[in-house]
Amino acid sequence: MQLGMIGLGKMGANMVARLREGGHTVIGFDLSPQSGRDVESLEALIEALEAPRVIWLMVPAGKPTDDTVERLAQLLDEGDLVVDGGNTKFTDDQRHAKLLAEHQIGFMDVGTSGGVWGRENGYALMVGGTQQDYERLLPALQTLKPQGDSGLVHAGPVGAGHFTKMVHNGIEYGMMQALGEGYSMLESSELVDNPHDVFDSWREGSVIRSWLLDLLVRALEDDEGLCHIAGNAQESGEAKWMVETALHMGIPLPVTAASLFARQSSQIGDPNTMKVVAALRNQFGGHAVTHE
Amino acid sequence: MQLGMIGLGKMGANMVARLREGGHTVIGFDLSPQSGRDVESLEALIEALEAPRVIWLMVPAGKPTDDTVERLAQLLDEGDLVVDGGNTKFTDDQRHAKLLAEHQIGFMDVGTSGGVWGRENGYALMVGGTQQDYERLLPALQTLKPQGDSGLVHAGPVGAGHFTKMVHNGIEYGMMQALGEGYSMLESSELVDNPHDVFDSWREGSVIRSWLLDLLVRALEDDEGLCHIAGNAQESGEAKWMVETALHMGIPLPVTAASLFARQSSQIGDPNTMKVVAALRNQFGGHAVTHE
Amino acid sequence: MQLGMIGLGKMGANMVARLREGGHTVIGFDLSPQSGRDVESLEALIEALEAPRVIWLMVPAGKPTDDTVERLAQLLDEGDLVVDGGNTKFTDDQRHAKLLAEHQIGFMDVGTSGGVWGRENGYALMVGGTQQDYERLLPALQTLKPQGDSGLVHAGPVGAGHFTKMVHNGIEYGMMQALGEGYSMLESSELVDNPHDVFDSWREGSVIRSWLLDLLVRALEDDEGLCHIAGNAQESGEAKWMVETALHMGIPLPVTAASLFARQSSQIGDPNTMKVVAALRNQFGGHAVTHE
Amino acid sequence: MQLGMIGLGKMGANMVARLREGGHTVIGFDLSPQSGRDVESLEALIEALEAPRVIWLMVPAGKPTDDTVERLAQLLDEGDLVVDGGNTKFTDDQRHAKLLAEHQIGFMDVGTSGGVWGRENGYALMVGGTQQDYERLLPALQTLKPQGDSGLVHAGPVGAGHFTKMVHNGIEYGMMQALGEGYSMLESSELVDNPHDVFDSWREGSVIRSWLLDLLVRALEDDEGLCHIAGNAQESGEAKWMVETALHMGIPLPVTAASLFARQSSQIGDPNTMKVVAALRNQFGGHAVTHE
Repeated sequence: MQLGMIGLGKMGANMVARLREGGHTVIGFDLSPQSGRDVESLEALIEALEAPRVIWLMVPAGKPTDDTVERLAQLLDEGDLVVDGGNTKFTDDQRHAKLLAEHQIGFMDVGTSGGVWGRENGYALMVGGTQQDYERLLPALQTLKPQGDSGLVHAGPVGAGHFTKMVHNGIEYGMMQALGEGYSMLESSELVDNPHDVFDSWREGSVIRSWLLDLLVRALEDDEGLCHIAGNAQESGEAKWMVETALHMGIPLPVTAASLFARQSSQIGDPNTMKVVAALRNQFGGHAVTHE
Repeated sequence: MQLGMIGLGKMGANMVARLREGGHTVIGFDLSPQSGRDVESLEALIEALEAPRVIWLMVPAGKPTDDTVERLAQLLDEGDLVVDGGNTKFTDDQRHAKLLAEHQIGFMDVGTSGGVWGRENGYALMVGGTQQDYERLLPALQTLKPQGDSGLVHAGPVGAGHFTKMVHNGIEYGMMQALGEGYSMLESSELVDNPHDVFDSWREGSVIRSWLLDLLVRALEDDEGLCHIAGNAQESGEAKWMVETALHMGIPLPVTAASLFARQSSQIGDPNTMKVVAALRNQFGGHAVTHE
Repeated sequence: MQLGMIGLGKMGANMVARLREGGHTVIGFDLSPQSGRDVESLEALIEALEAPRVIWLMVPAGKPTDDTVERLAQLLDEGDLVVDGGNTKFTDDQRHAKLLAEHQIGFMDVGTSGGVWGRENGYALMVGGTQQDYERLLPALQTLKPQGDSGLVHAGPVGAGHFTKMVHNGIEYGMMQALGEGYSMLESSELVDNPHDVFDSWREGSVIRSWLLDLLVRALEDDEGLCHIAGNAQESGEAKWMVETALHMGIPLPVTAASLFARQSSQIGDPNTMKVVAALRNQFGGHAVTHE
Repeated sequence: MQLGMIGLGKMGANMVARLREGGHTVIGFDLSPQSGRDVESLEALIEALEAPRVIWLMVPAGKPTDDTVERLAQLLDEGDLVVDGGNTKFTDDQRHAKLLAEHQIGFMDVGTSGGVWGRENGYALMVGGTQQDYERLLPALQTLKPQGDSGLVHAGPVGAGHFTKMVHNGIEYGMMQALGEGYSMLESSELVDNPHDVFDSWREGSVIRSWLLDLLVRALEDDEGLCHIAGNAQESGEAKWMVETALHMGIPLPVTAASLFARQSSQIGDPNTMKVVAALRNQFGGHAVTHE
């Protein structure tokens, strides 16, 4: 099928490549002239696509996606379809869908997992939208997904794709933190000769065998002892949204929240919270305080 | 090679079967006459094995293992080797090794993962002991492990096998809880049509693809909505030991601890902690309290 | 000074009583005829007050408060002042203030702590609004607050009062949970004869002496062993908002979140999260599952 | 009454002063000649005391206390009484009591709270031991405790004093962390003018009024914004022991553990756990990693 792709960053460009290898015609646009774009403007992209058009967005979540959807609402025609493949918060999908619907333009949200490996392995795709739109997009989805039976789900109506991706990433946070805690134990133990060998051995037969474990072994192959990697990690939004959403659903998420807090803490140099604890210890116990 | 196996429960019997299929001679003993044991007493087991003997224990951790090791210290001969394949706490390994060493009997600890699937897939094996003992046991280990390159590690000296297994299980706790939290979100969301389909789709291409995810899909195939499973889970010891050990190492384990606490909480019917919170709310706010 | 009070529930009625004891003229209105209201309608309340009026709301947060503010925006005159003393989320204050400002009506938010004891001891008051409005309301605030030097703060502009109250309640959650965890330990220990005596002893000299500790001792006096109190506790909103707000500020709140999660968990009968953990244990280990 | 005091550090010296002001005769010994000790050796201390003797230890927990108890077991006479007022782990009390009992020497454990303020305000005392020993020590306990009705409890048999003190300190950890989290919110909010004023206002009328809150206000008076205090805090042992003990009792302590983990995390410069998270993000997402 023919698609337009807006956003030719790491993810977008890889998806274009995989789609083209699968026989689809993709016309790419990006704001940056260095992106290898096929057309130089949104208008030119729309001009180049045959109606009814399908346009896939791989644009940063938030304002960039908001702006793009708003412009497309003005520029596209009745019967066109916009697919948001980025990391948009699921609550924004309703707003985008409604805006486009006012112009009889369709909307789908596709949560996408697989990272830089997706071009080769395929992407896990979580789709929100109507059954009709899902079937319309299916040829492209079939190409983007991995080759096996799994890797693609029509999760529900608009918003369900990004909701599902949000949950996926929340689980990912917990798994990564669990692996990190285990590594810390092995690394600090005098009993264990080589944590790298242990993780490598777990790749088969163990209950925790997983792709993240495979990646950790790769990371340890690249950098034994992880000496060249700083002990702090950013958060990307989804786990935060998941905890926020769960608060309102009344679902306790101790592990997801703890994983998020660990990342946040790792980014804070001199936390006010611990200043208070240190100050109180000083007040009641005369415990020495590290003055800065 | 020839081995004695003490403990013919679910794990022990499966390991005997896999060892025999691999061409080894295994003589099994269990306290229970219904176990399918080959001999009727520890003495008969020792009698039946050619010296120098190798005896593998798959006995419940704690007193049963302690008692067995103590009896073996009395009954075995110089040069024999005892292998503890159960879930013993790593700090007990030193004690067992020392006791056996007084009689010139060797000791190894082998952490074993893979559950009921191990007979077919092989077991992930984490070994603690000397290099010499490791090599002596290697033929059996090679048979028990999965067929690929991974699944076996000589983690370090005595204790390292069970330490490593303890850490493995701690990671397992975190991963399981992460999956559980994600499932809760999907199950309670009005957006998502079918959590089962979502988990199934994640088996390929996604960052969280893992054996535990595969098993969850199996569980959902068996029991859609997990309606026949009660929402509480026991803890088996290892995560508790891992948190305990980390306390003394000064390593914070927020996710492992939270996973353990979630299981403990699920087992407590009417927690005193929450009685206090409810009582305080009643005291200062006059909030209604559910009287029992 | 003269005030109107809307909402004559437990909190509102007590505040009216304290204000009247302090020499203020208060005209009370409530939707319920059984409330002991002085007037039978909002219109009658406004009629009865001399302009420029001050009207204090003690109405449930959310829709009831929203509705009341919207009606007051229609009914009040330029120069009148609305004070929200309820538990409104601070982000709603901006909206209410803006709506009223369109009619030249002032707005203040006053977070109020002290519970059912406030009538006797005074209320801790956290005020958001302009300096001018604060001074206008000061006579009433001086009466409502406790008699000492503390208990009243002009925390900042509109919203600061409820923000501060939200944080107060978040701290309260953590303190209550900490006391609960300590009580659980004492109650379950074979070493400790009587947890009640221990808590009573901590009321003087100890580092943790506090009003909440005093209240816990009262609760134990009323109900030794807290036998008549069920081990579950509701959450009232503020801690949830605090965690939500912190997520966006990038501030990790492990203790506040854990306290909130403990309450949420205590309300869930058969948690899906633990069903997954139990199902997975069953899948890989053949562990018995409690079928319902 | 007459007592010997071993250990004239900050706590011990203050207790000697309060005891002497209360009319008791105290003979002090410390290893350090600069301590203001009354006698120069343990032997001289024993010589100077009339039998049956009472000797109070304020010695660091662990080896120093172990060594002192062992020497006292050799040096003291039948009918003497040793009181451990330090921060010994409750599980060590049994051992000490047993050793001393072999020589017909009595033992009590007294958990002591109140910090540097205890000399003036009195100490909260939590006592473990027999009723007979408790009554024997009562004159000294009455002097050390605060002047009101509270502040002293005979918690149970040997070990109960330190167990209770351990729980006290665990609660203290949770309360301090809760205050710290609240402070972080106020400090980072653009709405709140001055966190110091807010905390000060909470000292009366609020639900969270407490001595720790008073101390935090003092700390903010000394150092507005806590600019001179580093954002990290040590842990002193008791919360760690409480979590460890709870693990074995099957009692989940999410808030106490989170408070402990926050302190541990604040002491770790470049945590291995977060290196793993960062390394994994790099592996699957190509996310930039801060190379050191």
